[in-house]
Amino acid sequence: MITRTEKSNAQQRAARMMCEAGIHIREDEIDAIEVVDFGLSHLEIEGVQVFTMVNTDRMAAKVLVLFPNQTEPEHWHPQVGDHPGKQETIRHIWGDLRFYVDGKDNMKEGFIVDGKEGVYTLRHEIVLRPGDRLTFEPYEKHWFAAGPRGAVLYSFSTTVRDGLDGFTDPDIQRTTVVKDED
Amino acid sequence: MITRTEKSNAQQRAARMMCEAGIHIREDEIDAIEVVDFGLSHLEIEGVQVFTMVNTDRMAAKVLVLFPNQTEPEHWHPQVGDHPGKQETIRHIWGDLRFYVDGKDNMKEGFIVDGKEGVYTLRHEIVLRPGDRLTFEPYEKHWFAAGPRGAVLYSFSTTVRDGLDGFTDPDIQRTTVVKDED
Repeated sequence: MITRTEKSNAQQRAARMMCEAGIHIREDEIDAIEVVDFGLSHLEIEGVQVFTMVNTDRMAAKVLVLFPNQTEPEHWHPQVGDHPGKQETIRHIWGDLRFYVDGKDNMKEGFIVDGKEGVYTLRHEIVLRPGDRLTFEPYEKHWFAAGPRGAVLYSFSTTVRDGLDGFTDPDIQRTTVVKDED
Repeated sequence: MITRTEKSNAQQRAARMMCEAGIHIREDEIDAIEVVDFGLSHLEIEGVQVFTMVNTDRMAAKVLVLFPNQTEPEHWHPQVGDHPGKQETIRHIWGDLRFYVDGKDNMKEGFIVDGKEGVYTLRHEIVLRPGDRLTFEPYEKHWFAAGPRGAVLYSFSTTVRDGLDGFTDPDIQRTTVVKDED
């Protein structure tokens, strides 16, 4: 759960970071930035901001913004019915970005969210430079996090059905509830 | 046909324009910018520069650069075998960009390449602002051109098989021949 003020502040902050990263967003598009707290109600710790440039029935292009030290929880893109599952390629644009994938534990720069050791199972760290890219096939688990400056990255994928992603953390709800203030 | 020097100059120029548009490209990626003269041997008049960020078997994300007043010829993306044909969404980033699609002739800002009236059949002009987007379904004919500043735009699509595009101009060859200088 986030408040309307939190959502609006996060949108403005994400837009400023996109701007710093060179990614143009129109004033009238800022309100469309999705602010996702994964139902965990601590956006700055676990969350992501998503600006969708394109989302058709066949493919999607998004800009993801992570605030400083913000983490996107461990997840994967499953096959659903006849749909073969989302294939995603990310390309790092700006800031400090670390991905965690299957492989030997070599974690050095990053950290696991406090008390969440059990739901971040992947510890193979890839530190990205701007321009670096990674591709994830359906079911390939991953999570990622920003360092001290935050991070801005592209996510290019086949049809996005984020509501159907799988998460390691059973407490996660993909739909963010926005609460009106009193 | 273009010479190696022309190709290299066009790559450097495209990279500078991307930089001006805020789109980061690594030094080691400049050489991968595709310079396309459509076999017409007058790149500055008809041609396009393409930087591929991602191209998998399911989707592609590219940055297209047009030099000032450069035109990408009229074309469409056909179905090939079982493949349903490329669906493409463009998003304008920077500069002066005009698209031409099916519809009433309202051409005002743009121009038809000299002597090529017969192979630019579409005259319905859409002048884009940064952030504006257009989606083309398979077989939907289109062409586009830059104004005085040139243009930088995204092209997001399902699998790209540019070699299979259809062109109105029968003189076009999609593969650009690069000639070694003597």
